[in-house]
Amino acid sequence: MAAAGFSCSAADLNPLLGANSTAAAEYICSGFDAVASKFVDTGYAIDNTYLLFSAYLVFAMQLGFAMLCAGSVRVKNTMNIMLTNVLDAATGGVFYYLFGFAFAFGAPSNGFIGKHFFALHEYPTASFDYGYFLYQWAFAIAAAGITSGSIAERTQFVSYLIYSSFLTGFVYPIVSHWFWSADGWASPAASDLLFGSGVIDFAGSGVVHMVGGIAGFWGAFIEGPRMGRFDHAGRAVSMRGHSGTLVVLGTFMLWFGWYGFNPGSFLNILKAYGESGSYYGQWSAIGRTAVTTTLAGSTAALTTLFGKRLLSGHWNLTDVCNGLLGGFAAITSGCSVVEPWAAIICGFVAAWVLIGFNKLAEKLKFDDPLEAAQLHGGCGAWGILFTGLFATKAYVNEVYPGQPDRPYGLFMGGGGKLFAAQIIQILAIVGWVSVTMGTLFWLLHKLKLLRLSQEEEMAGLDLTSHGGVAYEYTNGYAAEVENQRNRFEMKSPAAF
Amino acid sequence: MAAAGFSCSAADLNPLLGANSTAAAEYICSGFDAVASKFVDTGYAIDNTYLLFSAYLVFAMQLGFAMLCAGSVRVKNTMNIMLTNVLDAATGGVFYYLFGFAFAFGAPSNGFIGKHFFALHEYPTASFDYGYFLYQWAFAIAAAGITSGSIAERTQFVSYLIYSSFLTGFVYPIVSHWFWSADGWASPAASDLLFGSGVIDFAGSGVVHMVGGIAGFWGAFIEGPRMGRFDHAGRAVSMRGHSGTLVVLGTFMLWFGWYGFNPGSFLNILKAYGESGSYYGQWSAIGRTAVTTTLAGSTAALTTLFGKRLLSGHWNLTDVCNGLLGGFAAITSGCSVVEPWAAIICGFVAAWVLIGFNKLAEKLKFDDPLEAAQLHGGCGAWGILFTGLFATKAYVNEVYPGQPDRPYGLFMGGGGKLFAAQIIQILAIVGWVSVTMGTLFWLLHKLKLLRLSQEEEMAGLDLTSHGGVAYEYTNGYAAEVENQRNRFEMKSPAAF
Amino acid sequence: MAAAGFSCSAADLNPLLGANSTAAAEYICSGFDAVASKFVDTGYAIDNTYLLFSAYLVFAMQLGFAMLCAGSVRVKNTMNIMLTNVLDAATGGVFYYLFGFAFAFGAPSNGFIGKHFFALHEYPTASFDYGYFLYQWAFAIAAAGITSGSIAERTQFVSYLIYSSFLTGFVYPIVSHWFWSADGWASPAASDLLFGSGVIDFAGSGVVHMVGGIAGFWGAFIEGPRMGRFDHAGRAVSMRGHSGTLVVLGTFMLWFGWYGFNPGSFLNILKAYGESGSYYGQWSAIGRTAVTTTLAGSTAALTTLFGKRLLSGHWNLTDVCNGLLGGFAAITSGCSVVEPWAAIICGFVAAWVLIGFNKLAEKLKFDDPLEAAQLHGGCGAWGILFTGLFATKAYVNEVYPGQPDRPYGLFMGGGGKLFAAQIIQILAIVGWVSVTMGTLFWLLHKLKLLRLSQEEEMAGLDLTSHGGVAYEYTNGYAAEVENQRNRFEMKSPAAF
Repeated sequence: MAAAGFSCSAADLNPLLGANSTAAAEYICSGFDAVASKFVDTGYAIDNTYLLFSAYLVFAMQLGFAMLCAGSVRVKNTMNIMLTNVLDAATGGVFYYLFGFAFAFGAPSNGFIGKHFFALHEYPTASFDYGYFLYQWAFAIAAAGITSGSIAERTQFVSYLIYSSFLTGFVYPIVSHWFWSADGWASPAASDLLFGSGVIDFAGSGVVHMVGGIAGFWGAFIEGPRMGRFDHAGRAVSMRGHSGTLVVLGTFMLWFGWYGFNPGSFLNILKAYGESGSYYGQWSAIGRTAVTTTLAGSTAALTTLFGKRLLSGHWNLTDVCNGLLGGFAAITSGCSVVEPWAAIICGFVAAWVLIGFNKLAEKLKFDDPLEAAQLHGGCGAWGILFTGLFATKAYVNEVYPGQPDRPYGLFMGGGGKLFAAQIIQILAIVGWVSVTMGTLFWLLHKLKLLRLSQEEEMAGLDLTSHGGVAYEYTNGYAAEVENQRNRFEMKSPAAF
Repeated sequence: MAAAGFSCSAADLNPLLGANSTAAAEYICSGFDAVASKFVDTGYAIDNTYLLFSAYLVFAMQLGFAMLCAGSVRVKNTMNIMLTNVLDAATGGVFYYLFGFAFAFGAPSNGFIGKHFFALHEYPTASFDYGYFLYQWAFAIAAAGITSGSIAERTQFVSYLIYSSFLTGFVYPIVSHWFWSADGWASPAASDLLFGSGVIDFAGSGVVHMVGGIAGFWGAFIEGPRMGRFDHAGRAVSMRGHSGTLVVLGTFMLWFGWYGFNPGSFLNILKAYGESGSYYGQWSAIGRTAVTTTLAGSTAALTTLFGKRLLSGHWNLTDVCNGLLGGFAAITSGCSVVEPWAAIICGFVAAWVLIGFNKLAEKLKFDDPLEAAQLHGGCGAWGILFTGLFATKAYVNEVYPGQPDRPYGLFMGGGGKLFAAQIIQILAIVGWVSVTMGTLFWLLHKLKLLRLSQEEEMAGLDLTSHGGVAYEYTNGYAAEVENQRNRFEMKSPAAF
Repeated sequence: MAAAGFSCSAADLNPLLGANSTAAAEYICSGFDAVASKFVDTGYAIDNTYLLFSAYLVFAMQLGFAMLCAGSVRVKNTMNIMLTNVLDAATGGVFYYLFGFAFAFGAPSNGFIGKHFFALHEYPTASFDYGYFLYQWAFAIAAAGITSGSIAERTQFVSYLIYSSFLTGFVYPIVSHWFWSADGWASPAASDLLFGSGVIDFAGSGVVHMVGGIAGFWGAFIEGPRMGRFDHAGRAVSMRGHSGTLVVLGTFMLWFGWYGFNPGSFLNILKAYGESGSYYGQWSAIGRTAVTTTLAGSTAALTTLFGKRLLSGHWNLTDVCNGLLGGFAAITSGCSVVEPWAAIICGFVAAWVLIGFNKLAEKLKFDDPLEAAQLHGGCGAWGILFTGLFATKAYVNEVYPGQPDRPYGLFMGGGGKLFAAQIIQILAIVGWVSVTMGTLFWLLHKLKLLRLSQEEEMAGLDLTSHGGVAYEYTNGYAAEVENQRNRFEMKSPAAF
């Protein structure tokens, strides 16, 4: 780690100072230039370290999704849902590399869809490095994971392959282009800001969570509920997932990964706010974002704990986990631009939003095994509005600099323009995802590719599509047990 | 990443050098000032990156605890114990934000309890940033997790809610103030050092592990053992946890997270020891701390493997996991100030301390389902003493600089003062936690809020308090199976 | 974070500039010297942050291995295989500290085996810090984990203790010395390059994966297949692992950890390629390495999905997981020196290599419960060849600088020398591991220490060696169930 470039020799400089001020000045300045270059290197090293490890954390959320989903479905569909989670990452890897990333961030664009960097052609550039691609890929695969929860336990595997590719490779990238690419039509960094404000969806309550949730809504709505989910009188029948430990494992992994998702969305950490040399800079804002995230999730969890205790009479772990995740989905939009105390409000409301949407879903006989449409769609939408209400002036200007007098939260005295832009975001996402994914699910339904047959649904996807069940807890005589189980299932469909 | 501040123009500097030495000097010095400022930014960016990712790792330990606890209890109490783990983090998030952090680090204080930063008021400052809050929060929730293990499987949920809030929000923060806040009465960074030494509890063998363990001891002692844990003749009956895979999963996650816990406790990494420009600095000490941690845990695991083989006749995985964790709990105090070879001694003794305390517990009919009092209390106490014996002169002065001639390990020639301070720490923690948590558990006991009824304990907390069991491995006909199980349990209490 | 060393006082400098150019020059140069020193500190802080967190990720792979192995064996051997995974890390910690690291990296050496740094004596140095030791330890324990998969479910525990120590403490360190220590005989950084090229095995397709896989091959070959693995007619009988969720959990943890394994193998991140001050440097190459890793694994997973669908008729999750890991094992060698598009080829071929070797194994009645020999040995070997074919000129020279005109990939126009060196690596590893580990397994076999008795294998290792089974899902009346299970097993060996 030689610092050769800016090494300074007094013996060389000395004669110059007295006799040749031109050479002396050049000597001194070349030293400073070398220092400046070294700082550039240093900055790239720090920022890429920060971004890459954040990307790894976001990737770890895929493990969290897989475990949460697995634990939330019945045992007979465990392998199926985990396979979708593995494939979200794998298909996403290939498709996002080939064109998804280009659609999302191939600037300059027409504001609607990007058009450079297909297969990472002419990459990296001064603005986009591989770490950025990896980080965005980890986000892209999260959206597809949300949707697979909504349509779990009753969807043909081939349908999954189709919608998942379409969502990760096309629908999601375009939404991320609109709100996150500097030249997207609703970007908060655009030169011509929507309503003079642009949409603030810092880490994607809308771009990721609503997209996944709305897509899931259409899938689940078109397919209809699982067999037996509502009885003949129309009352909801509880269909508990098969493993509470997997639900908790998944929830904690998602919490862990959310520290990559939200604070990581700053993309770099070495950035002074205002003058250099102060203790307050982007590193502080990143820490604050981790704190708001923690507080929103924690508050939502506690609110759900006591809320559900009042409503149902017991302390329900699964509901607490979902409430927690609802709080996270909500704070994801405004995490970087609100005060910690506001995050508590965000989480408190998110818990009730989820409880409300779940009540509504039951009333409408809508069946989403993971509550994904309610959680990611509903709490995500609340989070977008929350940002329009509570974003503070100082933080908005630090996080989205260079536009003096930009609007901020309505309740913080920043006017209604940001709030209006946030509403536009909700409408745009609902519209776009409904048109694309709604149509796709409807087509798959018409082509009879969407829903399983009754026999398959009863037997479970693991046996019918994936070659066997997830567990063999009976020491070596599994085949017999399985035979018996199959017989039992075939004989007593009424049990479902 | 423009380095504009210290850009240097030879054309501008040249005429100054010959003619106007005042302006030339100012020009040159303003360059160096800009460099200094940029280094300040760079330092904050690096140190916060280091601290934040360390905090995330410490948080991941909560996942580890949840899985370890779940696997170590019987299946009927799985949801209960995992809910306590989720709530430790969530309640901790809100309470530590509101006042826990203020009690712990709200300096300046009276040496006993902090009094600033309630709800992060007037935060951050030059010394305290959000990353530091997050890191300390992740520590605070670990202590409560330890205690919930000790009283598992027989404690009313409402009791948990009370003691957990009290521990995280008050008891623990005060202990951390004493030993970790710069103005705590026993801090190694205080201006007036206890015994001229102060206590060295680098990452919290005492502050975290003993606090959690002693609290757990009183809870478990006052409640008494689980039904059936000791037979009519007083012999211990093994009550195996329900899942070895969860125990191993939890143990590995804790190991993983301990690299945030111990090396992370340095809080920053960019710090030269002695002169700048050498390869040896805090980054080395951090790496060494990761190595001592690894060696202590590894040695304790191996010692337990062979020790228990001799004592019990088989190679016991669960015991090895607990031994490993005992080694970690012990090295946590001195990890930064001892040589790697000493860490091997630390781990070796820790394994026997745990085996010994477990024997003793069995003799005294003390029942702690996770061995948490023995492990975190016993091995934690050993670790505190170990530091007083093996801390080296060089490392103590590097890690706690600015106090020449400070005492170090007794066996390393550093006199008995550090060792005496370490004993004071053990006494202070035992006293404080016994008075506060012991009293609280006794009050809960008197108010009949602590222990479950016999019927509830037999049925398990998941059914009685949390709305259902953790697993549904039987494809869709779970309700029937559950009915049968309940009937079985009600009929045959003798089986417990 | 005072920047005192390079603080500049215009008042002090001013009089010097006019009157005393010697002192002025010294004053200015001492400023630059201080800056240079501060950059040295900064570099160490960044690089150690990068390396340490990478090491933690690699360690997390041990958790991944444990879960993958546990899920892939039958329930009766779950505790056994997880104990081996815990002990790989623990034994590895002590042995690698005592001598493994010295054998591997104790340069200068004779090219065959290192001879310094036993028990980290005279450590750290300017080139080797504690973080490096930790990183290499995490690699060492991975190799032993691979082997334990191959011989699972039928091997005496004492045998495991012997071969694992020998592999981690001796066999593996020597291989890593050959290819990774600067003075290893086949190192790409040696002064006298093998074939003018040296072997490029960047993160260890050979050094780690082939070593573990070939060792596993000999163990599994000498032991023979598990009872019942092939029926009387010689047809393979499927022996499914007991938990698909553990397999997926393990696979995702391995994927997560691989971001420490491959990109982490750069060891440092603050390094400009060419001149300082450009956006392209080692940070980019690290990001690209994460991308190639992702693409190879993803492609291999998708190829396996469709390949196995054609061959077996269903969408097999376990096979997809293994295919994914095969892609990772293959790209590990060339991840840093190939283009992303080449990684897709790497993964595609790796999937077919694994399918082919699995077919072959079945034909030859070779039984490896984890497919470890096929996956780590087979795909690892393919990866080594792949590097010899697709390594690009630019990347090879950036990653292994200082040797102009060094050979690169055959298909990229770089001649056959690198490819020849890669073949030598395969031969050397196969030879060395066969001679050492093959002999050891043969000796253990002859001493009757290797394979379990038929009774023990039928009952399962957990009951016979480890004091009990992994799970107790039956609420409290486990003992009875176990008795019944044991009776069942004893009566009906035909079921196996």
